[in-house]
Amino acid sequence: MKVDGKNIRPIWLEKDSKVVKVIDQRLLPHKFVVVDLKNVDDIITALKEMYVRGAPLIGATAAYGVYLATVNSPDKTINNNYLIKESNRIKSSRPTAINLAWAVDKVLSKILKIDNSLTKIEVAKKQADKIVEDEVCRCRKIGKNGLTLIKNISEKKKNKTVNILTHCNAGWLACIEYGTATAPIYAAFENSIDIHVWVDETRPLNQGARLTAWELGKHGVKHTVITDNAGGHLMQDGMVDIVIVGSDRTTRTGDVANKIGTYLKALAAMDNNIPFYVALPSSTFDWSLKDGLKEIPIEMRDPDEIRYVQGFDEGAIRSVLIPPENSPAANFAFDVTPARLVTGFITENGICRATEQDIMRLFPDRETP
Amino acid sequence: MKVDGKNIRPIWLEKDSKVVKVIDQRLLPHKFVVVDLKNVDDIITALKEMYVRGAPLIGATAAYGVYLATVNSPDKTINNNYLIKESNRIKSSRPTAINLAWAVDKVLSKILKIDNSLTKIEVAKKQADKIVEDEVCRCRKIGKNGLTLIKNISEKKKNKTVNILTHCNAGWLACIEYGTATAPIYAAFENSIDIHVWVDETRPLNQGARLTAWELGKHGVKHTVITDNAGGHLMQDGMVDIVIVGSDRTTRTGDVANKIGTYLKALAAMDNNIPFYVALPSSTFDWSLKDGLKEIPIEMRDPDEIRYVQGFDEGAIRSVLIPPENSPAANFAFDVTPARLVTGFITENGICRATEQDIMRLFPDRETP
Repeated sequence: MKVDGKNIRPIWLEKDSKVVKVIDQRLLPHKFVVVDLKNVDDIITALKEMYVRGAPLIGATAAYGVYLATVNSPDKTINNNYLIKESNRIKSSRPTAINLAWAVDKVLSKILKIDNSLTKIEVAKKQADKIVEDEVCRCRKIGKNGLTLIKNISEKKKNKTVNILTHCNAGWLACIEYGTATAPIYAAFENSIDIHVWVDETRPLNQGARLTAWELGKHGVKHTVITDNAGGHLMQDGMVDIVIVGSDRTTRTGDVANKIGTYLKALAAMDNNIPFYVALPSSTFDWSLKDGLKEIPIEMRDPDEIRYVQGFDEGAIRSVLIPPENSPAANFAFDVTPARLVTGFITENGICRATEQDIMRLFPDRETP
Repeated sequence: MKVDGKNIRPIWLEKDSKVVKVIDQRLLPHKFVVVDLKNVDDIITALKEMYVRGAPLIGATAAYGVYLATVNSPDKTINNNYLIKESNRIKSSRPTAINLAWAVDKVLSKILKIDNSLTKIEVAKKQADKIVEDEVCRCRKIGKNGLTLIKNISEKKKNKTVNILTHCNAGWLACIEYGTATAPIYAAFENSIDIHVWVDETRPLNQGARLTAWELGKHGVKHTVITDNAGGHLMQDGMVDIVIVGSDRTTRTGDVANKIGTYLKALAAMDNNIPFYVALPSSTFDWSLKDGLKEIPIEMRDPDEIRYVQGFDEGAIRSVLIPPENSPAANFAFDVTPARLVTGFITENGICRATEQDIMRLFPDRETP
């Protein structure tokens, strides 16, 4: 995507194919720093310390990690035991992210069968590249499918600005290009539809204010940052035409786990008769789950993510304490929006309503649980 | 109320009656500083710079301002023209707060008729004291009335912890004692009912995290700070028994203007069948309004209140920038919760449902528009 007029991705391989480059997302939007990852240790640091975040990007980084393991093998034959050991090290850097293990295994399984070390390196690179390009392809399709919704609204409004509200960052920074929730937004922008995005700041970690606003601004998309409290009022006042969010996990019945606060926006959308869409690739559906509220566990994270807010002051990134030193805080990271509040899903296979029947119809080739 | 075991109010008169003392609320919770206000200029600074905030406290501060004008009169007779001029200066310090003009006029009208200058001073003090004590009395009654609701829940739960969620600061810092939304909480605490308060941090200015958490903590009430995004999930998960919020303005039909984000919590309470109460003195009802969504204008405040977050770091209070320097932000300060989402009102006259009929029945002596 565009950053100051230049095409950029959150991860890429240097021309000599020896160095993986990533944007250090911890410093955005205040500092744009590209970091060199030269070996497995660097990859693990980038994953662990969250230079990179977002399931698809985590997968891509991990895949390039296995590739770097082949490049940097201490013995010329690139011993399989060494590769398995290094792969396990990468996998254990963030145990909860499913894409991580999936991507590592995808590369590893291809190269373990190969004897020639040069072919090993070549195939590892090819496989990692393919993971990245598949991701891009899925996001582009989500964008294309979601575009029709925005186009329809624009036509109904006689080309007046379409106001889209989004929560958190389901953008290209989390994926590779386009993003999921932002894919229809970028597609509409490319098609010169007049759009404006309300960006929920998304406390506690402010991924909306920090990352989504940065992405949209750098690409040239009109947007305004708002507090998470504001969306309801905007909807009451006719200032939102459609809500599009991403998802971390969605049941086969259409219950959506996403960043905390998503449920409140879905309630407001329903109360004001505003379409509420979830954009997600098929890999985000958990075909084994039927009841999101009962079956999806909600991660509790460090209360200090609420108590301290990170921002920019006098040239440096600083954390400031907000509540009293002794007041406890509780940090629920996600919530579940019941399917009844979801207008539909925007996927790479098309758009469907949030019912088990419609979801199943769109994905006939899914792996059944 | 209690602060580290000592009784304290956000405003009081020194024993010699020459100095008004206020807590500088801009520095809470990280610094507890009491400021001396010795004359009308000091009073205006305290109002303008928001050392004090909250309608009742603004009124009290303004009333003591008129009193200080009498004390500091440049001529011994305390000329009426001088008093009117000083009163107008106080009134214009924050033109939007209705309590301000009301309190100033209340004191001024009493003393303009008096000739003797010593009596003028005495009556001004008496009248300012009365405004304060009336406020305390109303809040205590709100607490007593709201207590019955919490008691009932506690009994139904067989004395297990009653979980109360509140938004923003409608506490004693905004009033004089007890507060409005917090009055039933303090009453339950005094009655040894096991309670726990979920404190919405309340972006953008974090009055919940900064002020409500400080108040409750200093008084010894169990509480936990959460993001504004979290309340919906807590309600879905059975972790909230009742929601109590304050109000800035409520229509005769029961539509409630309150800090931005209140509407989202009301939606979640309705969706999960949790009682949602608004605690307010009769003075907060606007008897002239029938449709809150159409008739109550929503104040837009400085976007920098969203873009910059104030907190504590290395011994100092600092502001840090969150979104990209160039991203615009929009700061809607309030929203309107329609009466259909409000279970009831807790007032000094008792509790009533959120219908025009019930509200009118509770306040037969209101001034009709």
